[in-house]
Amino acid sequence: MKIIESPREMQQTALELKRAGKTIGFVPTMGFLHEGHLSLIEAARSQCDVLVVSIFVNPAQFGPNEDLDAYPRDFERDESLCVEEGVDILFYPEGEGMYASDASCWVDETRLSVGLCGGSRPGHFRGVCTVVAKLFNLVQPDRAVFGEKDAQQLRVIERMVRDLNFPVKIIRGPIVREPDGLAMSSRNRYLNAEQRRQALCLKQALDLAESLVAEGDRSVESIRQQMRVLIGTVSGAEIDYIEFVDDVTMAPVEVIESETLVALAVKIGATRLIDNMVLNP
Amino acid sequence: MKIIESPREMQQTALELKRAGKTIGFVPTMGFLHEGHLSLIEAARSQCDVLVVSIFVNPAQFGPNEDLDAYPRDFERDESLCVEEGVDILFYPEGEGMYASDASCWVDETRLSVGLCGGSRPGHFRGVCTVVAKLFNLVQPDRAVFGEKDAQQLRVIERMVRDLNFPVKIIRGPIVREPDGLAMSSRNRYLNAEQRRQALCLKQALDLAESLVAEGDRSVESIRQQMRVLIGTVSGAEIDYIEFVDDVTMAPVEVIESETLVALAVKIGATRLIDNMVLNP
Repeated sequence: MKIIESPREMQQTALELKRAGKTIGFVPTMGFLHEGHLSLIEAARSQCDVLVVSIFVNPAQFGPNEDLDAYPRDFERDESLCVEEGVDILFYPEGEGMYASDASCWVDETRLSVGLCGGSRPGHFRGVCTVVAKLFNLVQPDRAVFGEKDAQQLRVIERMVRDLNFPVKIIRGPIVREPDGLAMSSRNRYLNAEQRRQALCLKQALDLAESLVAEGDRSVESIRQQMRVLIGTVSGAEIDYIEFVDDVTMAPVEVIESETLVALAVKIGATRLIDNMVLNP
Repeated sequence: MKIIESPREMQQTALELKRAGKTIGFVPTMGFLHEGHLSLIEAARSQCDVLVVSIFVNPAQFGPNEDLDAYPRDFERDESLCVEEGVDILFYPEGEGMYASDASCWVDETRLSVGLCGGSRPGHFRGVCTVVAKLFNLVQPDRAVFGEKDAQQLRVIERMVRDLNFPVKIIRGPIVREPDGLAMSSRNRYLNAEQRRQALCLKQALDLAESLVAEGDRSVESIRQQMRVLIGTVSGAEIDYIEFVDDVTMAPVEVIESETLVALAVKIGATRLIDNMVLNP
């Protein structure tokens, strides 16, 4: 496995691979890899000649009061995991190499990114879209895999690829969960033992929504209220949002009549966790 | 010469050319080609294996009260000129194929695009950056040529390429002028005989600035005032802006101490014309 730190070298390498007719698969990550990431890497591995994984904790997608500095890092462990997964190139750029000090050009998605995490984290999706556009231009992937855990990010990136005509096929990787249901996340590392138990309320609230729909309830107001009650019983859990949106347009839904994405963000102590599920009425 | 109307076909063709190791040169235009465009096409011709010219009157860069519908078009003449210039592919997309009806992803440059034409034409550079990003993704150029007549556009595109890491080298094409000094522009077509004479005031004002600097004047306020007086003597000429900015940062300049871009926009009747010059004190 080759480790590349320079954006310029990454791009030159990618362009040479493309000229040689190779297909490139790509999994962009912020590192501290877990089973969720590995599932994305495995999905990409089977669909390309050359597999590139990037590790870059992107400052542009963190707000001023968020956890950029605290975000967990363990490059040596990530490197070993990538070797085991058969990654060909690990792209590990420095922050300064990725953004000029006078950077002034950004990619903005103006519709799908407005609510949910976009509402709670102003500027987050501008940072996400911009870094993904940059990474696509540097890595030149034919296919890129993004996880369904970040449901809104996935849809925003798909929209960016469509609207800016990137020649990249986006592959959706299903959420990977711990045996007790907690969605895998690098931020789970922040939780102490008690919080780890409390964090189960996200998946439990989604399961509740799914059962209510299965029983015939179609009212978002009613279902959301019961999810709020469930999470309200967990001390230390503070709801950021529980949203029901159309799975394609991300427009808020009041009555569940077609595929509906239910997504939530909950703070467990200081740790903000997200999870989601698609409801099929 | 091949004419391609479908964005998808353009992209597939370009990707195949790149896989075959060909270099692609690109000149994006809005058609109604004049000597200025042809000089850009000639500059690109010598630097690539395959030369692509696009003709697309981009609705996203026109404001609601601008001349989108009136913009001059003559596809058959443009086609003949491209054949004569040895263009390999003429990309001529339909508007509906370029923008989805629910398009929501845009490229924004937030610093260089603020003043000058960006001040007079809100949203113009969002439209320019977005369509150029789309065209780069569709045409996959190694080199793209942009004219210096659109000085701010050129610098904004160079910034976009740098900040979003497009693997494209931007070539600057010098302004081409009519024998009497008027910068070539498709919009010159709008001028009647009298306005055509009045339009010379743009270049005359720039020449005046150049002579004043050559004579030792360094004060932007003084030079601008004399340019205003010159243009003020022309009936039917209405100044939109006369700006002096740093040639790299586009920040306003008060004293001309290093390479300074002087750019102006003047309405001659209903026709808004632009011109510019770099002053070297």
